[in-house]
Amino acid sequence: MADTAPSSLVSGRPASARRRYGNRPTMKDVAARAGVGLKTVSRVVNGEPGVTPDTERRVQEAIEALGFRRNDSARVLRKGRTASIGLVLEDLADPFYGPLSRAVEEVARAHGALLINGSSAEDPEREQELALALCARRVDGLIVIPAGDDHRYLEPEIRAGVATVFVDRPAGRIDADTVLSDSFGGARDGVAHLIAHGHRRIGFVGDQPRIHTAVERLRGYRAAMADAGLPVADAWVSLGSTAPERVRAAVAGMVGGPEPVTALLAGNNRVTVTAVRVLAETREPVALVGFDDLDLADLLGITVIAQDAAALGRTAAERLFRRLDGAAGEPRRVTLPTRLIPRGTGETPPPGLRK
Amino acid sequence: MADTAPSSLVSGRPASARRRYGNRPTMKDVAARAGVGLKTVSRVVNGEPGVTPDTERRVQEAIEALGFRRNDSARVLRKGRTASIGLVLEDLADPFYGPLSRAVEEVARAHGALLINGSSAEDPEREQELALALCARRVDGLIVIPAGDDHRYLEPEIRAGVATVFVDRPAGRIDADTVLSDSFGGARDGVAHLIAHGHRRIGFVGDQPRIHTAVERLRGYRAAMADAGLPVADAWVSLGSTAPERVRAAVAGMVGGPEPVTALLAGNNRVTVTAVRVLAETREPVALVGFDDLDLADLLGITVIAQDAAALGRTAAERLFRRLDGAAGEPRRVTLPTRLIPRGTGETPPPGLRK
Repeated sequence: MADTAPSSLVSGRPASARRRYGNRPTMKDVAARAGVGLKTVSRVVNGEPGVTPDTERRVQEAIEALGFRRNDSARVLRKGRTASIGLVLEDLADPFYGPLSRAVEEVARAHGALLINGSSAEDPEREQELALALCARRVDGLIVIPAGDDHRYLEPEIRAGVATVFVDRPAGRIDADTVLSDSFGGARDGVAHLIAHGHRRIGFVGDQPRIHTAVERLRGYRAAMADAGLPVADAWVSLGSTAPERVRAAVAGMVGGPEPVTALLAGNNRVTVTAVRVLAETREPVALVGFDDLDLADLLGITVIAQDAAALGRTAAERLFRRLDGAAGEPRRVTLPTRLIPRGTGETPPPGLRK
Repeated sequence: MADTAPSSLVSGRPASARRRYGNRPTMKDVAARAGVGLKTVSRVVNGEPGVTPDTERRVQEAIEALGFRRNDSARVLRKGRTASIGLVLEDLADPFYGPLSRAVEEVARAHGALLINGSSAEDPEREQELALALCARRVDGLIVIPAGDDHRYLEPEIRAGVATVFVDRPAGRIDADTVLSDSFGGARDGVAHLIAHGHRRIGFVGDQPRIHTAVERLRGYRAAMADAGLPVADAWVSLGSTAPERVRAAVAGMVGGPEPVTALLAGNNRVTVTAVRVLAETREPVALVGFDDLDLADLLGITVIAQDAAALGRTAAERLFRRLDGAAGEPRRVTLPTRLIPRGTGETPPPGLRK
């Protein structure tokens, strides 16, 4: 496997894959478009002297227009080095991405490819800079956990043959293979679980509203409340930064307000960690279900909606390598199920129902 | 800052830096050594036709011998793209490396450089493959958390001008800038803390003995026991994989053996997580101090020896950029202090002293 996969990544694509991702344009295409000879294109591409500024500009324009990339990877492979794929993360310090990255790495390894990563730090401009930098460094494919909502900047790369799969959050304004967790269904299940334990006033504290998973989880929360015929007070919903101080204020406001909630859905692992701390200090116990599992959550009895982060990474990476191996067809969206794990905090009844 | 740093990384090094890291050899040097013309070297380097196999072999040998690398980064920089540094991690899923990676990323960002990462998955061969792949992709510098103990494979890269800093664990068989936590002192403090709370039979469960930090922490454990005039039974020390089943067996053996320990030093975060689970099931409470802090450890009352992972990353990255900016001088080793955080498990007295 490791011996045959690398060459198939670059040179061995069947015609169907070339149709799907487009032929990589050649130096010949650039020369024809710029109206110059092949040697002139080669000089520009390799930074050699002997080209007038005007000619260099025309060649550069043709390179841009065609999305031409000098095929360094092919050369690297011919020298017996390894193919590579890139992974654009959203946050290097979020433990959720640890098992996801490791699963991608394992699939890459099984295909004889190296994984190189970087992080956007939740900044759309950095995401773009990093993704294009990885392409410039000749990755054969890209897996992106997007920070931004407009990925048209990747279209020239995709046309030039860089297979691309989005994971955890969907691509914006382009059609691409995508692997997601069922954020909507998971949140709905979590809130239905709290309702089944007698809660009627339930709050939701989530991530920024520009983040797809935050919006989907809010939608799941609202759906469960509506299914049970329960109203949602404005004060019970808070989306924003997951910084501890913001979450602390949001949770404190909901449990201490005029219509205090008796239960909370925490929108992700970072929210849960702070919510657990705040709720440890409240007079009345407040029930809690957290989206995402946490290390040691079992010992603290925290009920969670667990995503399978490793399965997300593995599914995305396998999709990527199928594309690199020539799989044709329209981009697909795969949604993986979540799993509610009852451990205690989600089964605490509201004050009126306590024995 | 971001406008000036990238060019200084490659082209703007003062003479002192060139002395320190060596001049990057040029195509002219390769041509002279191979006894061929400059055009021939250019053809070989750029994969162009018109070179006999014998000549190509001679040129390749000269390239190898001189450690010549085509200066793609310089070309990338001239086009206004970003410089980059590489980070070789040991395990993508270990939460300890999250804040470390993020701190490296922030320093890189402040210097206008991108960070690209990869993981060795604790395999020395993969570490080498990844580090060299990052060099082949023209990183300006490398930060390495080593898995292996022989880094002579990096010598040609370092001679060719790739600044290199080791972090968390030292380099093997080469002299390099290194940033470490005080594993010895931290472990000694943790065990002294248990002794101060009345414990005499104390166990140590650590990572594999080929890992530098595991050995240093064991040395700290032994030093604290010796300082207090306490013997160490063979059954009280267990080094090996941090997989849950291995740690579970080791801890169970120490607390259930003929000379049961009344306290434990857990050698890292992965050991602590499993030890906490095992000790939650023992009849008699067993005191615990864990090396490395954990999310939610405060809520569980786990006493830890905290490393400042972000400071490790920041210090290593700042050292790297000082080298890239031209800092000369011998490689330095920096050791950062650890901090004991008492939270409960480390202050539990042994059975005889309990009220």
